[in-house]
Amino acid sequence: MSASKLYLAVVGVGGVGTAFLSQLASLPFKLRPTLVFVSRSSKQLYTPSYDAVSVSDLQASTSKLLSLFELVNYLSSAPGKAILVDNTSNQDVANAYPSFLRKGISVVTPNKKAFSGTLQLWNDIFDAVESSDGQALVYHESSVGAGLPVISTLKDLVSTGDQVTRIEGVFSGTMSFLFNSFAPADGTGDGSKWSEIVAKAKEAGFTEPDPRDDLNGMDVARKLTILARLAGLKVQGPDSFPVQSLIPKELESAKSSDEFMQRLPEFDGEMEGYKDEAAKAGKVVRYVGSVDVAAGKVKVGLELVEKGTPIASLRGSDNLICFYTKRYGANPLVIQGAGAGGEVTAMGVTADLIKVVERLR
Amino acid sequence: MSASKLYLAVVGVGGVGTAFLSQLASLPFKLRPTLVFVSRSSKQLYTPSYDAVSVSDLQASTSKLLSLFELVNYLSSAPGKAILVDNTSNQDVANAYPSFLRKGISVVTPNKKAFSGTLQLWNDIFDAVESSDGQALVYHESSVGAGLPVISTLKDLVSTGDQVTRIEGVFSGTMSFLFNSFAPADGTGDGSKWSEIVAKAKEAGFTEPDPRDDLNGMDVARKLTILARLAGLKVQGPDSFPVQSLIPKELESAKSSDEFMQRLPEFDGEMEGYKDEAAKAGKVVRYVGSVDVAAGKVKVGLELVEKGTPIASLRGSDNLICFYTKRYGANPLVIQGAGAGGEVTAMGVTADLIKVVERLR
Repeated sequence: MSASKLYLAVVGVGGVGTAFLSQLASLPFKLRPTLVFVSRSSKQLYTPSYDAVSVSDLQASTSKLLSLFELVNYLSSAPGKAILVDNTSNQDVANAYPSFLRKGISVVTPNKKAFSGTLQLWNDIFDAVESSDGQALVYHESSVGAGLPVISTLKDLVSTGDQVTRIEGVFSGTMSFLFNSFAPADGTGDGSKWSEIVAKAKEAGFTEPDPRDDLNGMDVARKLTILARLAGLKVQGPDSFPVQSLIPKELESAKSSDEFMQRLPEFDGEMEGYKDEAAKAGKVVRYVGSVDVAAGKVKVGLELVEKGTPIASLRGSDNLICFYTKRYGANPLVIQGAGAGGEVTAMGVTADLIKVVERLR
Repeated sequence: MSASKLYLAVVGVGGVGTAFLSQLASLPFKLRPTLVFVSRSSKQLYTPSYDAVSVSDLQASTSKLLSLFELVNYLSSAPGKAILVDNTSNQDVANAYPSFLRKGISVVTPNKKAFSGTLQLWNDIFDAVESSDGQALVYHESSVGAGLPVISTLKDLVSTGDQVTRIEGVFSGTMSFLFNSFAPADGTGDGSKWSEIVAKAKEAGFTEPDPRDDLNGMDVARKLTILARLAGLKVQGPDSFPVQSLIPKELESAKSSDEFMQRLPEFDGEMEGYKDEAAKAGKVVRYVGSVDVAAGKVKVGLELVEKGTPIASLRGSDNLICFYTKRYGANPLVIQGAGAGGEVTAMGVTADLIKVVERLR
């Protein structure tokens, strides 16, 4: 059966969404569903008769704005199976996944919010998938490590009966870049202070517009929540385990990103302290996340890491994820590479979409 | 739909086959096809009415032996879709894949022979898949790197439109073990000679029964053939590009594995030479395979590798595969871990089977 009898809605056309639409356009016809709905924050484009639409017409669209509830109805009335691709990081859209899935609409997304939100939302999503008997699918590879095969690998390990004992790694491209620059394992650093490195990364666009959104560790905590749940732990949410924020207590009250950046140098001594402590032990300081499955413990924060280990040797803004399992024994299964960026994030979304199309058509 | 309306034939119950059957037995009912045929070299077990069979009855079976041609007919007459799991490394079974696929029977296998044989066989297999319109599938994750997500990752990169420029790595657990022991990057080696390390590895079961089957490089060449073809190169076969054999010319005529092992020490000086040459340049010697996609070149052999790189730092018998692509830029997507062993090879097979069941049911 041709994929053109499958109907596609794409929510969000920012960096990831734009790259995704471009990858979608290059798919062979038989893998490409018909795009019938596309939206950005204040614009939507669709027709009542489910005609194919083009994102280039979105800006000029006069389509009446549908609520999420109305979008569920619109897609569930399509003349074939429908797929929602959510390229936002919006919590409201995430909260609506169970409604889409219960109506037989599959969901593909890099949005972490649904899978790292409440355990209730997680259960609602996977209960809906389960009871759909293969009609409503959910794929979210890019919610951890962008296009790196992290979610799919963990799912394969679990579904084939391996025992995952520990997951450990560097889960933020921004944190990776900051620490690889601040304390490179090969000693090639230029001695820049922590605040200087954060400022440089901000200017280069390697951090969120407000760097505090990276430094608070919540992005990493969300990813660890997702992995811990896939490994079988009933984690309540990203604030239910220890997460070390790199926003100094005294700066939590800073009113703006600018004020924060201005005062950050006051705390360079503290970060230098970590670096020196690590150096004395022949180690380097890194921002690490880990899931100890047996002990049921998740944690995120600074760790002193042995030089020569894969985590210490990371370069650029690479992510690195180690799966320790019963079958793999002492040496983990390791996945490493760029874990952020529009193109590689979109790749995970497009690859997921292909899998959904292959299963539904 | 329940997977019990899918019919499964398992050929080969050696190390991988036994581990696979044990993983299969642990799958949830809805993912577990009905096992209707199981065989080892001289025994087969099946019933004319496609009843479920158990491998524990194989030894005592009196079923009349079916030829491959007869097996194709048996499975294509099953009252539902059928799947062949080939856990052998047999060329004849591999040659029959197109016959199975053309009759709508899906194939899941760790057997490298089909995908690294003639280009004609490769084309016959994928033409049959293509023209089945999603009814006959072929999955072969464990044909490279056992259960590591190598094939699936490369397919995702290609199918989403990334340009793979170079694939490089250590593709043999045996070669990895031999060189990590012979010339460890951290200088912890015990000074053992090459022939001593090969002998120790043979005793420990880390090599094929005849170590020449590892040392000739053909296993690595077969894997590179598969990856190069998936990346788009029309490679004629594993003997169509340079493969450096570690069997000394003078020993090619050795009549037995014993004679070979007895005379191998005569060539310890040569291997020591490579090691010293590398050490002088601050490097280590490793057995590396690479595909230069742009230049259309594949090669396999000894290389002097910079210390501190992932390849030089490998431990134990780990494999390591680097994908350099346009999207991933300067730092490759890297996958690392055990690339051999019954349990992890079977894991790739079982994970593939689950994907086939999810698509067919």
